[in-house]
Amino acid sequence: MASVRVESEVTRIMMGVNESSIKGYPHASISSKSAFEWTLNKIIRSNTSGFKLFFLHVQVPDEDGFDEVDSIYASPEDFRNANRKDKINGSHLLEYFVNRCHDIGVACEAWVKKGDPKEVICHEVKRVKPDLLVVGNRGLGPFQRVFVGTVSEFCVKHCECPVVTIKRSAEETPRDPVDD
Amino acid sequence: MASVRVESEVTRIMMGVNESSIKGYPHASISSKSAFEWTLNKIIRSNTSGFKLFFLHVQVPDEDGFDEVDSIYASPEDFRNANRKDKINGSHLLEYFVNRCHDIGVACEAWVKKGDPKEVICHEVKRVKPDLLVVGNRGLGPFQRVFVGTVSEFCVKHCECPVVTIKRSAEETPRDPVDD
Repeated sequence: MASVRVESEVTRIMMGVNESSIKGYPHASISSKSAFEWTLNKIIRSNTSGFKLFFLHVQVPDEDGFDEVDSIYASPEDFRNANRKDKINGSHLLEYFVNRCHDIGVACEAWVKKGDPKEVICHEVKRVKPDLLVVGNRGLGPFQRVFVGTVSEFCVKHCECPVVTIKRSAEETPRDPVDD
Repeated sequence: MASVRVESEVTRIMMGVNESSIKGYPHASISSKSAFEWTLNKIIRSNTSGFKLFFLHVQVPDEDGFDEVDSIYASPEDFRNANRKDKINGSHLLEYFVNRCHDIGVACEAWVKKGDPKEVICHEVKRVKPDLLVVGNRGLGPFQRVFVGTVSEFCVKHCECPVVTIKRSAEETPRDPVDD
């Protein structure tokens, strides 16, 4: 006999997404797109009303604090404009994911933060309290990882929620696997 | 406009489950049950026909050693047919999960293997090729982990599929957190 299971609130899935290192904004990285498609196809499936997606894009400030190396800043206003430009780039990246969700009928929220991606993602997990964090991963070998570090490894270790890491498929890996 | 998404084959979720270290067979460990309930409530939800669960229980061989067991249990009836004495302990553990799935209407398979749990789980992932591996975790601190090791950490690193680790809640943790 089938037991009755009451459907509780939606399952909240947070995703860290970033821009393509090859094509730049507004294009999403291969691993972000892989993680998103995996979540749609393997987890959400046809149950679009049972889930809500939270997209977080973290922008890394330059070492010297400038947002764009090539820009010349001559007044406080230049900085305000540069900041606005950065936000536009980040939000255009998010637009891709939000539009896809809208087409499919999955509720979502998306926002941009600045800082160290791994730290910010864990901080936002603490705040948003998702049921699951999905992060993409380039699938680098140990030798490559030494030089680039991986956000996903840090999140698996430190985020206060279940975390699943989705690797790019071999066919999607660019010639230089550090690219994404 | 909503895009049409074709529902492909079911999502295959594999779970490594083990017996309670406190109550012994046929009782499942707290972390196995937590991982199972999380999968039902947060991932499968009401979409019972969209998923298939694969339960693997790995028994660590006694010093005496015992026979290889590779039966597959897919329904409550299969357990009635299991009468070999050396199978009863492992299969009774699996019965809990298979019965729950049967009640809810989620397709499943379950089987027992012998060996080192972390090695066997990764080997079975290679063979079964699930879309996701869910493993429970006692949520031990670094100090405790040094002594007991954790299967989940090994799986996250070495299994050839996405892996999600589900911790027990604080309320469920026994006085000695190494117990499960």
